[in-house]
Amino acid sequence: MRTSQYILATLKETPSDAEIVSHQLMLRAGMIRRVASGLYTWLPSGLRVLRKVENIVREEMDNAGAIEMLMPVIQPADLWEESGRWSEFGPELMRFTDRHNREFALGPTHEEVITDFVRKEVNSYKQLPLTLYQVQTKVRDERRPRFGVMRAREFTMKDAYSFHMSEECLNNTYQAMHKAYCNIFERLGLDYRPVIADTGSIGGSVSHEFHVLAESGEDAIAFSDGSDYAANIEKAEALAPTEPRADATKELKAFPTPDAKTIEELKKHYGVKPHRSVKTLIVYGSPDENEQRGLVALVIRGDHELNELKAEKHPLVDSPLEMAKEADIIAAIGAKPGSLGPVGLTMPIIVDRTANVMADFVAGANKDDEHFSGINWDRDVTNYDVADIRNIVEGDPSPCGQGTLQIKRGVEVGHIFQLGTKYSEAMKAGVLNEDGKNQVMTMGCYGVGVSRIVAAAIEQNNDKYGIIWPQSIAPFDLAIVPMNMHKSHRIPDIANSLYQGLKDAGVDVLFDDRKERPGVMFNDMELVGVPFTLVIGERNLDENKVELKNRRTGEKLMIDIDTAIESIKAAMQA
Amino acid sequence: MRTSQYILATLKETPSDAEIVSHQLMLRAGMIRRVASGLYTWLPSGLRVLRKVENIVREEMDNAGAIEMLMPVIQPADLWEESGRWSEFGPELMRFTDRHNREFALGPTHEEVITDFVRKEVNSYKQLPLTLYQVQTKVRDERRPRFGVMRAREFTMKDAYSFHMSEECLNNTYQAMHKAYCNIFERLGLDYRPVIADTGSIGGSVSHEFHVLAESGEDAIAFSDGSDYAANIEKAEALAPTEPRADATKELKAFPTPDAKTIEELKKHYGVKPHRSVKTLIVYGSPDENEQRGLVALVIRGDHELNELKAEKHPLVDSPLEMAKEADIIAAIGAKPGSLGPVGLTMPIIVDRTANVMADFVAGANKDDEHFSGINWDRDVTNYDVADIRNIVEGDPSPCGQGTLQIKRGVEVGHIFQLGTKYSEAMKAGVLNEDGKNQVMTMGCYGVGVSRIVAAAIEQNNDKYGIIWPQSIAPFDLAIVPMNMHKSHRIPDIANSLYQGLKDAGVDVLFDDRKERPGVMFNDMELVGVPFTLVIGERNLDENKVELKNRRTGEKLMIDIDTAIESIKAAMQA
Repeated sequence: MRTSQYILATLKETPSDAEIVSHQLMLRAGMIRRVASGLYTWLPSGLRVLRKVENIVREEMDNAGAIEMLMPVIQPADLWEESGRWSEFGPELMRFTDRHNREFALGPTHEEVITDFVRKEVNSYKQLPLTLYQVQTKVRDERRPRFGVMRAREFTMKDAYSFHMSEECLNNTYQAMHKAYCNIFERLGLDYRPVIADTGSIGGSVSHEFHVLAESGEDAIAFSDGSDYAANIEKAEALAPTEPRADATKELKAFPTPDAKTIEELKKHYGVKPHRSVKTLIVYGSPDENEQRGLVALVIRGDHELNELKAEKHPLVDSPLEMAKEADIIAAIGAKPGSLGPVGLTMPIIVDRTANVMADFVAGANKDDEHFSGINWDRDVTNYDVADIRNIVEGDPSPCGQGTLQIKRGVEVGHIFQLGTKYSEAMKAGVLNEDGKNQVMTMGCYGVGVSRIVAAAIEQNNDKYGIIWPQSIAPFDLAIVPMNMHKSHRIPDIANSLYQGLKDAGVDVLFDDRKERPGVMFNDMELVGVPFTLVIGERNLDENKVELKNRRTGEKLMIDIDTAIESIKAAMQA
Repeated sequence: MRTSQYILATLKETPSDAEIVSHQLMLRAGMIRRVASGLYTWLPSGLRVLRKVENIVREEMDNAGAIEMLMPVIQPADLWEESGRWSEFGPELMRFTDRHNREFALGPTHEEVITDFVRKEVNSYKQLPLTLYQVQTKVRDERRPRFGVMRAREFTMKDAYSFHMSEECLNNTYQAMHKAYCNIFERLGLDYRPVIADTGSIGGSVSHEFHVLAESGEDAIAFSDGSDYAANIEKAEALAPTEPRADATKELKAFPTPDAKTIEELKKHYGVKPHRSVKTLIVYGSPDENEQRGLVALVIRGDHELNELKAEKHPLVDSPLEMAKEADIIAAIGAKPGSLGPVGLTMPIIVDRTANVMADFVAGANKDDEHFSGINWDRDVTNYDVADIRNIVEGDPSPCGQGTLQIKRGVEVGHIFQLGTKYSEAMKAGVLNEDGKNQVMTMGCYGVGVSRIVAAAIEQNNDKYGIIWPQSIAPFDLAIVPMNMHKSHRIPDIANSLYQGLKDAGVDVLFDDRKERPGVMFNDMELVGVPFTLVIGERNLDENKVELKNRRTGEKLMIDIDTAIESIKAAMQA
């Protein structure tokens, strides 16, 4: 491709509305342009990357025995009513009516359509297991689309679905998909981690997310430094401390705290160390036997954070978790948030495992502007339940039993689920089993955020000059930059001949034949992130050499023109 | 691919709701399944064909210098308001509002989005000409979706747009695209014709449609038997007859016709030959100088058909053409349709060129149940206008001046337009010209109905056994059908070894390893339309032979196992 016959569309300035580096660089490097909130046009360079990602995903799916098909983007409401998601799914589901006033949605995912397909086409256990996939445009009406294609409303996804006669068979395919996903991210050249994940609204039991590690990632991931264990922080278990609770040594004593509504203020104004205090959070739950909605207190150590997903899994707590309104708290306790604590509460109390080993600690006195010190469990508070309800922190022991946990940030780019029978049961998707009886199929589903990978790859691979693409997904393998091409015959002749030779050798070359100053061309090629630049200049030509520059290492190699193509191919494979 | 690990999904019965052969065969051969009206899932075999078509289209676009990009399916209403099409486009435009109540549409075409893109990215004449394209899912909310993917609501299209500084430059690109389209259809292996077309609602002046010829085609195309001339029948000019009008020989004479309301009945009951009578059609128009809406009479020979597109281009006739209501006709003329004619009419009369050379002809007397015979222009009817307002018929002289016209039917699969400045002017898409002044760009647009091509190819290539794919787009190049594989070791060994050898040689093979009777397997492979079948049977193996069958010709070739792969490759290239 010659730049003169291409749309490079690089920008010098960083667009002010782009908050994260991948969004900034995708705009500056001419990868995408915004059409409307969360809707983007992929420019030629961006599309080249997107297609390379797509193809790697496709090849690994095919290798794993999955079969490609293509379902419509537009889905009829009746299928979603069968699964129950027409009412469950929030406003993220883009709904509309057609000219005959029939209801449809733009698919954010295709469990319903594929389950309907398989229940019609597959009749016998002999046709299973079966894994079907598609690479497709998906739609989610995000409340706040942002970060460019990282959280867009229209995006490209690979979604696969598997069908089985047993959990065991599902597990085999799940493991094969796990392996295929690892192969994909290896081939993409990204630093990634599969992490144990929450199954969320898709349903099912076992689930892993695949994260591309990047400091700017939205998700926090907990890793063991002594094993392969990795889990989304939402899901990582905080083990009970192994040391026993210390004995009580202090008296329960109230003290005035007019200036402390938070753990931070308690430290600042009254010298209470956060890890010597507890936070008491009041949420809604159904503590009564007759399931009347009431209040439940959650107690965690002052320096810890509540893990809402863990809390809402507790049988006493309503799901989704909802913090109690101040009026309800005052009515029940007689004090405002900021002075709450477990002592004297009449509602059910759930104490985090770590808070449970504390002794002589500080908490609100359930009286405005007053706290207690010297609180001790069992002596001052009886009738409480102990559970894991906090986020892990760095240094916690790993739940796998080996090593301690570290936290890194990641961008979620893949998610695999063992769905079980959630959809097949609701939609009556059964086949005849070996005994000739109808049996509901067991399902798995497997997603890759294809367009999101492009952004995640940039989050992980960039510097102040621009993008540093992994070779496997770079828009071009190499850029030819002839210096002052229009001042000599020799330079264009050699540039053209190398361009043709490299193309013939299967190298994806961008030939920068614009009448621009060398500096402008270098900057553009670094911004776009082309892995190698071949610089052709008068001085080196005198020695029959050209210069090959590696974008990632900055390394410059002088190579002989006569063997340039072999040298370049060798450098690309190094 | 092994059928045991695939979804062949062939059907024995012809689905009752499929009206045309391509729709029937796409369902029966396991290419598509209906999800809802006009919405289809592409099964693995169908998707393989679709992707092969896509790739040929893409390669020819790249060869012609067009650059691929990808715009969103969801388009904001404001761009369509700028072009004026938000109000112009009918209910085919699938509109909806997002969660913030902003208006959007699902793109049936992308003139607005691309014009917006180019006006922002391109500033100078130096960056032009530029041709951009995409291969994408498009949406049209068809009033009556039918014929499977032939007229679906969601479909795959290649749409390209070009931008220029002059009509001449546009014309060059237009010719290059015309050539690229010819290359595409040649490579697809289809019998096709580029035909002169009407520009319709897209706008612009010059336009060609590309039709795949098939008896079931929706469109009628007029061809010259003496030149390359071809035009959509809507657009083909009916030349004025070269023979002069005969002299009047008969008197104008009324005769009662109580049993004739149509040309057919006039012939049946009163012996009037259709080509000796005229039809008089009353439509709405604006005949007055003050543009009051009134009635206009259109007169064509009894055996001809009105061409509405031609008629509505006449300045006196309202566009879109609308037939007058019976009440308005009776009020103006005093007679019902069925007894109308040009004699004595006070409204403007437009006479077709061929009707204009008639003499001594028959028409209604503008009195119920009465006709005139012996009508002659100028003597009996004065004050009329002559124009081409009829469809051409076979045998008409070609408008190109060479040969006479034949009519064939075709399926429109491509359409190219010289748009001119319709969109760029409305959306103020200008660049700086050589004089440093802002100049509105001139545009072209070029569409290919990618998914429609799949159906059109079947309409043209099928027999009573199923589809006969052109090799270039067949889902598989060859099927291996081992007979009674499970009764011997020799057959599976040879089948497996040939399967592997063919795959290694780059042949797209379907290995039918099901435990089915040979007849079932042969029928399925013929239905799916695999171009070659390799039959492996005990008897031939005794002579070290296998049988290669050509789906199109039915030819069977005995080939040596040891050189089977070379023989097969040779047969495929023949």
